[in-house]
Amino acid sequence: MKTDPTTAPAVRKVRRAVAELHGELVRNGLVAWTSGNISARVPGTDLMVIKPSGVPYPELTAESMVICDLSGARVGGVLNPSSDTASHAYIYRHMPEVGGVVHTHSRHATAWAARGEPIPCVLTAIADEFGGEIPVGPFAPIGGEEVGRAVVSTLSGHRSPAVLLRAHGVFTVGPTPRAAVQAAVMCEDVACTVGLAALHGRLASLPQDQIDALYRRYQTDYGQR
Amino acid sequence: MKTDPTTAPAVRKVRRAVAELHGELVRNGLVAWTSGNISARVPGTDLMVIKPSGVPYPELTAESMVICDLSGARVGGVLNPSSDTASHAYIYRHMPEVGGVVHTHSRHATAWAARGEPIPCVLTAIADEFGGEIPVGPFAPIGGEEVGRAVVSTLSGHRSPAVLLRAHGVFTVGPTPRAAVQAAVMCEDVACTVGLAALHGRLASLPQDQIDALYRRYQTDYGQR
Amino acid sequence: MKTDPTTAPAVRKVRRAVAELHGELVRNGLVAWTSGNISARVPGTDLMVIKPSGVPYPELTAESMVICDLSGARVGGVLNPSSDTASHAYIYRHMPEVGGVVHTHSRHATAWAARGEPIPCVLTAIADEFGGEIPVGPFAPIGGEEVGRAVVSTLSGHRSPAVLLRAHGVFTVGPTPRAAVQAAVMCEDVACTVGLAALHGRLASLPQDQIDALYRRYQTDYGQR
Amino acid sequence: MKTDPTTAPAVRKVRRAVAELHGELVRNGLVAWTSGNISARVPGTDLMVIKPSGVPYPELTAESMVICDLSGARVGGVLNPSSDTASHAYIYRHMPEVGGVVHTHSRHATAWAARGEPIPCVLTAIADEFGGEIPVGPFAPIGGEEVGRAVVSTLSGHRSPAVLLRAHGVFTVGPTPRAAVQAAVMCEDVACTVGLAALHGRLASLPQDQIDALYRRYQTDYGQR
Repeated sequence: MKTDPTTAPAVRKVRRAVAELHGELVRNGLVAWTSGNISARVPGTDLMVIKPSGVPYPELTAESMVICDLSGARVGGVLNPSSDTASHAYIYRHMPEVGGVVHTHSRHATAWAARGEPIPCVLTAIADEFGGEIPVGPFAPIGGEEVGRAVVSTLSGHRSPAVLLRAHGVFTVGPTPRAAVQAAVMCEDVACTVGLAALHGRLASLPQDQIDALYRRYQTDYGQR
Repeated sequence: MKTDPTTAPAVRKVRRAVAELHGELVRNGLVAWTSGNISARVPGTDLMVIKPSGVPYPELTAESMVICDLSGARVGGVLNPSSDTASHAYIYRHMPEVGGVVHTHSRHATAWAARGEPIPCVLTAIADEFGGEIPVGPFAPIGGEEVGRAVVSTLSGHRSPAVLLRAHGVFTVGPTPRAAVQAAVMCEDVACTVGLAALHGRLASLPQDQIDALYRRYQTDYGQR
Repeated sequence: MKTDPTTAPAVRKVRRAVAELHGELVRNGLVAWTSGNISARVPGTDLMVIKPSGVPYPELTAESMVICDLSGARVGGVLNPSSDTASHAYIYRHMPEVGGVVHTHSRHATAWAARGEPIPCVLTAIADEFGGEIPVGPFAPIGGEEVGRAVVSTLSGHRSPAVLLRAHGVFTVGPTPRAAVQAAVMCEDVACTVGLAALHGRLASLPQDQIDALYRRYQTDYGQR
Repeated sequence: MKTDPTTAPAVRKVRRAVAELHGELVRNGLVAWTSGNISARVPGTDLMVIKPSGVPYPELTAESMVICDLSGARVGGVLNPSSDTASHAYIYRHMPEVGGVVHTHSRHATAWAARGEPIPCVLTAIADEFGGEIPVGPFAPIGGEEVGRAVVSTLSGHRSPAVLLRAHGVFTVGPTPRAAVQAAVMCEDVACTVGLAALHGRLASLPQDQIDALYRRYQTDYGQR
């Protein structure tokens, strides 16, 4: 008799965590109506957990979270998965270090994406969190894995865990889904600040050595270890 | 003995639903003080349910909702209906597929309306939800059905469920009142994003074939069916 | 034996109402920290009730509200009244139809005040609520009745219940304190919308006859009577 | 037997107060995710209490607050202190009148910091609270006491309790931590208002004598004494 991997305690734990993390998108004002989604890799497996498509945030529960394999096919849960599922799966297949992915249309970041303009590294917070500018990836149609391909190709060669997708929105990645949510929150925060500042003229990037020093410190010394 | 159609269970259900939906306008930050309103057609009848005029949002209850016929005359409820009632009625008479209508002065969308400028289709979210630009209708005086006429004439020939009324605000329609609320929320969301983006220069619309593909996918594949 | 007029039931009722109305300033996002204040005339008397100076909004109670005569002198309550008290008193002395006064530094309206620019009547909501542009009054020092004088002199000759004070903020008046709060909320709302719209170029005012028609309708037909 | 100074009732009281004050940063919308921090001098000692590094705001408790001496070394508490600790300590050592320090990246103020532009004294609220323009300090690397040095050197010669640090954010000081929080809230408030106003062109500062009169009145007459 074969056990169903989708009912393992580890999967249940991830479903609970992903359901709860969606609340952070709402509390941080990153999403409107049903847009946006979070997924997480189930550690040590070829499974991921992702938001169901088009379900209102207040109705999201652990049980409504969908379990997919890394081809994007549903293997557990009863709802249809997010229409970005194939792209999340593509990211997990091609970025083994990634444990969580977040997608939003948060307003200030998406304004930069609409213009196809990277967010320049003009604030210590951007150097800390993104290690340089927040890059822009190409436009990609929605529904297949093209969006995921645009994310992966843009992020390689950048320290940034966030990418702006042209005419679309934001994807962020992290070692955990919570880290990816943090990147989404901070991306919107600096997109707003730099967007306001840039209304009065072009801003100069911080010098590369300062960016490197800030990034190193933040990645190694900040927080509780 | 004739039964009173306004006390039928179907009408009570719609009054409850419309009262509750008004909370979404507040939670999504679309309305100030008593401005804005939602109506719904009572399915299979020539009746509609609409917000009373000038009542604060926290005081709205199912019982305070007003029942009108499709000429806009009150046939149930004790309060005066919204001063936009004749226009809502006009929309229901001329758009049989419409089951709900929402009106707001949401800030970012109304800024486009103040300029008399359509919101260009520069984001995937706009293609998804509106199938193209969000159009602008003519200025119309308030109180009669002129506003309704401006809405109907502008929306015909557009896939958009939202219209910006010049120097006034936003009307959205949908097969259900909840769908019309969704259109109002998404209209404000993209109005903000594109408004921010446009501060730095004109934006190019997405190509028509991409818009068509995004719209088709969103209307058929998104969500739970 | 003389009864103390400041303990009359009518005064207690006004204190309770004014204390509660201050919550609307917070809920509508019009005030930061302790700035802003509301006063109300005690109907049929030469008394007014006003916020104490510098007390945090969550600590405001009916008992903390200060009772002053219309020279601005405290006649009841134990706290120091608002430093705008003499100006509120001036308004009540010179505008007998006014029953409530609100003062805020709400951000979007104060941005117009900082520029010394009136908010043009480019939206139906402005015609409805203000009957024309929202005018700008002169700069006045704080603490005496100069601010009140600036409010009264600017509002005479305007239908607007709101005035922008140059380099300072907003004062609104109304037949009741609740009506003055409504004017403060709507002033901020349209200041934001028109401010956003004006970023892309000058806007044309509505024609005077449309303004007149909108104002008349809103003042006579809107709401429950 | 020597008593541990870090368990004295005075220290416990400050830890409780500082933990609670962090809630004001959240409620006033000044911080994103874990950024920002508050510290307080323990009156009459060479100790300070400061936020732990990288801990989410909802998890902050009195017990999680860290006690440091004025060289910035931890002497009580179990978590790592804020990575700005050495800079807070520098401020307390060099500004004996300061009892509390607040640091944020609040969006509108940080937009001014990104441009390296002081906020001009164009509003009565700025004259009241800051006694003149809000100055800009130099860029400083994070982690050591350079940020503190930039704060102290910029604030000397200014009445302002707030300083914008170039390409970084805001520091505010006060006789108490609550006063420093007030300065942080008001700094963001006026940064937003003046930022909006300045989109339409340069603004003239208030005349120096008006600034002096407003500042004197606010510092001596405002509030309850």
